[in-house]
Amino acid sequence: MPANRAVIYQGPGQVGIREIDYPGYELTDGPGVNKANVGRRTPHGVILRTVASNICGSDQHMVRGRTTAPEGLVLGHEITGEVVDVGPDVEFIRVGDICSVPFNIACGRCRNCKEGKTGVCLSVNPDRPGSAYGYVDMGGWVGGQAEYVMVPYADWNLLRFPDRDQALEKILDLAMLADIFPTGYHGCVSAGVTTGSTVYIAGAGPVGLAAATSAWLLGAAVVIVGDLNEERLEQARSFGCETVNVADGDPAEQVQQILGRSAPAIGQPLVDAAVDAVGFEARGHGADARTEMPATVLNSLMDLTRAGGAIGVPGLYVTGDPGGVDEAARVGSLSLRLGLGWAKSHSFVTGQCPVMKYNRGLMMAILHDRVRIAENVNATPIPLDQAARGYQDFDRGAARKYVLDPHGMCGSRA
Amino acid sequence: MPANRAVIYQGPGQVGIREIDYPGYELTDGPGVNKANVGRRTPHGVILRTVASNICGSDQHMVRGRTTAPEGLVLGHEITGEVVDVGPDVEFIRVGDICSVPFNIACGRCRNCKEGKTGVCLSVNPDRPGSAYGYVDMGGWVGGQAEYVMVPYADWNLLRFPDRDQALEKILDLAMLADIFPTGYHGCVSAGVTTGSTVYIAGAGPVGLAAATSAWLLGAAVVIVGDLNEERLEQARSFGCETVNVADGDPAEQVQQILGRSAPAIGQPLVDAAVDAVGFEARGHGADARTEMPATVLNSLMDLTRAGGAIGVPGLYVTGDPGGVDEAARVGSLSLRLGLGWAKSHSFVTGQCPVMKYNRGLMMAILHDRVRIAENVNATPIPLDQAARGYQDFDRGAARKYVLDPHGMCGSRA
Amino acid sequence: MPANRAVIYQGPGQVGIREIDYPGYELTDGPGVNKANVGRRTPHGVILRTVASNICGSDQHMVRGRTTAPEGLVLGHEITGEVVDVGPDVEFIRVGDICSVPFNIACGRCRNCKEGKTGVCLSVNPDRPGSAYGYVDMGGWVGGQAEYVMVPYADWNLLRFPDRDQALEKILDLAMLADIFPTGYHGCVSAGVTTGSTVYIAGAGPVGLAAATSAWLLGAAVVIVGDLNEERLEQARSFGCETVNVADGDPAEQVQQILGRSAPAIGQPLVDAAVDAVGFEARGHGADARTEMPATVLNSLMDLTRAGGAIGVPGLYVTGDPGGVDEAARVGSLSLRLGLGWAKSHSFVTGQCPVMKYNRGLMMAILHDRVRIAENVNATPIPLDQAARGYQDFDRGAARKYVLDPHGMCGSRA
Amino acid sequence: MPANRAVIYQGPGQVGIREIDYPGYELTDGPGVNKANVGRRTPHGVILRTVASNICGSDQHMVRGRTTAPEGLVLGHEITGEVVDVGPDVEFIRVGDICSVPFNIACGRCRNCKEGKTGVCLSVNPDRPGSAYGYVDMGGWVGGQAEYVMVPYADWNLLRFPDRDQALEKILDLAMLADIFPTGYHGCVSAGVTTGSTVYIAGAGPVGLAAATSAWLLGAAVVIVGDLNEERLEQARSFGCETVNVADGDPAEQVQQILGRSAPAIGQPLVDAAVDAVGFEARGHGADARTEMPATVLNSLMDLTRAGGAIGVPGLYVTGDPGGVDEAARVGSLSLRLGLGWAKSHSFVTGQCPVMKYNRGLMMAILHDRVRIAENVNATPIPLDQAARGYQDFDRGAARKYVLDPHGMCGSRA
Repeated sequence: MPANRAVIYQGPGQVGIREIDYPGYELTDGPGVNKANVGRRTPHGVILRTVASNICGSDQHMVRGRTTAPEGLVLGHEITGEVVDVGPDVEFIRVGDICSVPFNIACGRCRNCKEGKTGVCLSVNPDRPGSAYGYVDMGGWVGGQAEYVMVPYADWNLLRFPDRDQALEKILDLAMLADIFPTGYHGCVSAGVTTGSTVYIAGAGPVGLAAATSAWLLGAAVVIVGDLNEERLEQARSFGCETVNVADGDPAEQVQQILGRSAPAIGQPLVDAAVDAVGFEARGHGADARTEMPATVLNSLMDLTRAGGAIGVPGLYVTGDPGGVDEAARVGSLSLRLGLGWAKSHSFVTGQCPVMKYNRGLMMAILHDRVRIAENVNATPIPLDQAARGYQDFDRGAARKYVLDPHGMCGSRA
Repeated sequence: MPANRAVIYQGPGQVGIREIDYPGYELTDGPGVNKANVGRRTPHGVILRTVASNICGSDQHMVRGRTTAPEGLVLGHEITGEVVDVGPDVEFIRVGDICSVPFNIACGRCRNCKEGKTGVCLSVNPDRPGSAYGYVDMGGWVGGQAEYVMVPYADWNLLRFPDRDQALEKILDLAMLADIFPTGYHGCVSAGVTTGSTVYIAGAGPVGLAAATSAWLLGAAVVIVGDLNEERLEQARSFGCETVNVADGDPAEQVQQILGRSAPAIGQPLVDAAVDAVGFEARGHGADARTEMPATVLNSLMDLTRAGGAIGVPGLYVTGDPGGVDEAARVGSLSLRLGLGWAKSHSFVTGQCPVMKYNRGLMMAILHDRVRIAENVNATPIPLDQAARGYQDFDRGAARKYVLDPHGMCGSRA
Repeated sequence: MPANRAVIYQGPGQVGIREIDYPGYELTDGPGVNKANVGRRTPHGVILRTVASNICGSDQHMVRGRTTAPEGLVLGHEITGEVVDVGPDVEFIRVGDICSVPFNIACGRCRNCKEGKTGVCLSVNPDRPGSAYGYVDMGGWVGGQAEYVMVPYADWNLLRFPDRDQALEKILDLAMLADIFPTGYHGCVSAGVTTGSTVYIAGAGPVGLAAATSAWLLGAAVVIVGDLNEERLEQARSFGCETVNVADGDPAEQVQQILGRSAPAIGQPLVDAAVDAVGFEARGHGADARTEMPATVLNSLMDLTRAGGAIGVPGLYVTGDPGGVDEAARVGSLSLRLGLGWAKSHSFVTGQCPVMKYNRGLMMAILHDRVRIAENVNATPIPLDQAARGYQDFDRGAARKYVLDPHGMCGSRA
Repeated sequence: MPANRAVIYQGPGQVGIREIDYPGYELTDGPGVNKANVGRRTPHGVILRTVASNICGSDQHMVRGRTTAPEGLVLGHEITGEVVDVGPDVEFIRVGDICSVPFNIACGRCRNCKEGKTGVCLSVNPDRPGSAYGYVDMGGWVGGQAEYVMVPYADWNLLRFPDRDQALEKILDLAMLADIFPTGYHGCVSAGVTTGSTVYIAGAGPVGLAAATSAWLLGAAVVIVGDLNEERLEQARSFGCETVNVADGDPAEQVQQILGRSAPAIGQPLVDAAVDAVGFEARGHGADARTEMPATVLNSLMDLTRAGGAIGVPGLYVTGDPGGVDEAARVGSLSLRLGLGWAKSHSFVTGQCPVMKYNRGLMMAILHDRVRIAENVNATPIPLDQAARGYQDFDRGAARKYVLDPHGMCGSRA
């Protein structure tokens, strides 16, 4: 069996590379593995040679020490890979297939999976509904920032690309199907974005940029992206978005100026739809721009979304945040101006994106040159060895989406 | 012109009867009338002889002094009436028609009305989207707890009952179409209630009981209603609901006991759908049952709703509450455990019910004996003169829905 | 291994009982088995002891010789059973579980299954999308009118009843979850039936009665059932439906008389929603009542459904009908007045019901006494040995749904 | 009052220009005016100076003599205009506004309008639900291929452009909002077109090209357009569509070749979604390409659409066609292979597009440069005087959408 090097969480602020076991069809004990999952057999799984494995903003929550992630955890839930072995119960996936792996692991056999709610699968995580590779409190499935990784329930979970060569040509785009592209798209769908919508996206990190890309794909007329980071806003402008630097003050006023005559109807100076692509580590606006204010984004979205509009919340909110700014934040409570949203009949859709609902359609859009997601999020392949630097640069706010490239199939240069 | 006696807000805790102007087709100045609406012509309106005009829980917010409602405001937004005159622009409604009036006034000509979002009509309230009769900050449309009332945009707003005699036979049921029946139904629809659902309704006041009734009509398998008021819970039990007295502690545990073997799927001990029919004046559970805790209901609904479920929020949350328990409550902020909802992929639908979306279907269900809403909410007709007593009894927690009966057409006895 | 007696198609008009092989986890050759499926392994399957196996109207198409079904075919696709063995890849279903089997076999791994379209699963039938047990041209899965039957992809396909004793108490109701109850319900959902709808169901056979039951469950205000068979119409009246005997002439006129004042809106004398529960073997109306006229039902539904209404078509239409009345019918062509439907903006939803979309909710409604489907369709258990008589009586128009009861668990009496 | 010249139907194959009455707020008798509408007052109407008035394929049905349209009928239902007078009941539309007029006249006060089904408004046409300007059997509303036209229920019907100068700059694009752009879009929405879909559009006339444009806007991956007219197919290729010349034979085979590796899933060689933009005057394929075969298009769409797909039918089918090829066609009956559609669980959505559902969003997409509908359909402005030539050229198959330009505001050159 080949060696299998992987990216490991080594404590707050630290990631490293370590060799781990080559994957098999059984969960074994290890850092972050739920005891109730130890020994679980996965004859329905496949082994993938990792073609691409992206660094995600939600990995950063762990690496910053904002979670209870144990040292030694193998990171990585945004996986694209080539099948090198199939378990005995796999029927339709074959060795050699290149596939996208939805970040949320799902069994395809429980009530929620049958209803298409694969983000809250009931059987893969003994702690609670919903799971992911390489993530704290998610059942203990080994992460995919590694040379090889096992994917369970492969017939259900995997999205096979129709043609190997075509897939490798567009691999940086296709790598975004594991998480951020569907996640951004789900945010927009949840917010009701459709032909002609005016849209505000809070956050210009990779999920925000993917949401902005999705808004265009869904036919939006105007897409405005807000952030504190000018480099990331510049990235948003590169594909036609308007931008708002929230350090300059209340985004509602800036949004109103941008929309101007774009907002013809009576009493509707603001956007039709809004997406929270920031989550619980939000900072304030204007003078508060350096202070963590976990409810800021949602409160401002209620302010700048029209009556009758909707708000998609793909940004992560947690049930507990040991590093929270105050007692409320530490138990995941937010001081929300719900009365404002109620007066406007807002609806809110929260939670993990059920990736399988969207990834096939988005793949088709990529393969037929309808969208340039890699370019829009500035996907940047780097060798596995440079993972630590990737984490650091991303944490410092680089306007890049780092794609770990363990086998040199994504064009990274050492 | 006949005399026109009406129910008037006379300051905190006080309502009285006073004679007001007979309505015409122009808004005139008066307590609570928005200056920008004064002089507005309504040739599209009709004059109704009030057949029924219910006392609503949201009227109580004003009467308790929890709002900025001015003294002299004419109350009443749950109106059923007989057309006695039609304005020059009315085309399809005729004198003699008996009609239900949606509590939310809508123009039928703005973007939101065209989209069916009549709860946030853009043109009838100069202050903000959304309006109602006899309500503070809603534009100043004169309330309908009166002998006569003007309804604007009558062709659009009014739901005509097909047969006068049949309507009068079922008038107490039909009177619930103006607000609470569609409002409760909207809560259930927003929460995804459908055939076989298990449902929790927070609040056994009239809206809660209407929501429970709606849950049955939508095919729910189990309907559980929670409240602190035993008399109201008894009312819920009278039509087959299970009940939880939240004074006895955490409703999640009680709900779990009730569901028992009704909850077959893996990891799903709780309800599929939940409705908040309480709103911002919520009190706590167990030991906190006498303390106002505005976020309690929503937090407990996130706790007891399954992953993948949804929460309907027809209960009123306000943008400002001068009588709020603390600074946050006074500006309409709630400390919500959104992280918990996010982990379960909950969605939340808030706001006024767009009554026109539902009232015709619910009318058909009433006329064809498919539902007994008047019985379920214990509709109790009383003469207009007894309005003050009705307000008091309702505020004390009577398990009744008081229907003011100004012309003796609902069977009230003095 | 126990003996395994089964109901066999023995040529036009003839069914008999024969002993067949005890099922295993591999498809073997036999009458009606697609060669491409021979040798297919099903480690994901389970063996069921058949608790109930209903005779279906679509079985009659085969038995009447209207299809190319080969002699020797084992019949039966409406199966409820007790798990007596589980294949090596089964994870969540256990021996002893009592389960409902959706009649449409689905793999849970193809694009259509992932989209919830289990009626057109892409992988179980080599001939075309969609499959069923014991049915001609459906891949060759052995039928379940037998003492034992194998169900593939068991974790995906099976609906487990939460409690064994409770299930056996309500077994005749639960037996309808395999096909006709979801099928009738799907017809209504497709037709847009909701609270307050007026509904016309064409056909008072078991699917029609199940559709009528579903219409009530969905909140319909008026349910009208049309047929030529008075005994079946009597059955429909037993649970509150209005009825139309189409032998008496055009159903549209009769429907109009029934609705009378129930149809208040301008220009809407007809029903909101209609369901075709007859299919291609339809007969005419009035003087044509004895003549087969395959397009009659759909044409009359376009006539009697309001503009803006919808038509659900769960009734079977076939791609070829060797016994068709004319050349067009023999290739499955119908002379439809589509111009009429177009003028009314009708929509049409056709095809097999995707059972898994509905069966869990309907099970909950049964278990909580919200619906009496067995009573409404007059479910009648009979021993396996009396299958031939059941087929005959049903073909003669008995107002009964025959439930074969191979192990005496449904209360049949010899 | 200014003169008012208009385009008049003068018998089969003939249109001319005649001066007609300047419009007022009352329907007067005239060719094609329903007697029951004569004298109908429209204080809710406005008078428009016609800015653009397009020639539509459905006008051709009348001009070819395929309908019972009377000589003298004023043609034209695709109207864009400037408000020059407002009726006494108009509240929000003002003189000077430039507006798009949905071709389907709707009252905004009946049940269907309240449900958003404005294509089957119940009150504007005494004959049946649904109406249009200048069209046979549609109530008798005077057509808009004229210098001035009256639009009733103006607050409800009109879509006001937010800025006059911006509107005039993009007037040829905005002129398509009256009919073909929403109609093509509705066809795609009805067929389930979404991100990544593969789509087949039958017909490369203006509606077909608008549907193809809409498919791109909705995110389609592949758009294939079929027709017999090479010039029109060339137009489709000009904006990225693949094309099929149905004169070369069965479109299903050609579609399959185009899709090739674009169709990865098992057993899905064909398109996800299909739109019939042809209607009842369809011709056959291959050798039958010169023969009128009214059911050809729908039958071929069932053939080439995947199981689980849907078919949108914006193309016009009529209840009677005096010029039909055979007895069945003359009463609007089609010989459809419904059995094939049923086997694939197809759904079909028919009828007039409810324009108001879509026109605002499409306007926003135009104003923000998201779509070039005028270019894609080759919009060609011509003076009113040249209407006859426009009708002729269009009937001969010119790949153009003629826009009558009575006041020279669209850039036509005489």
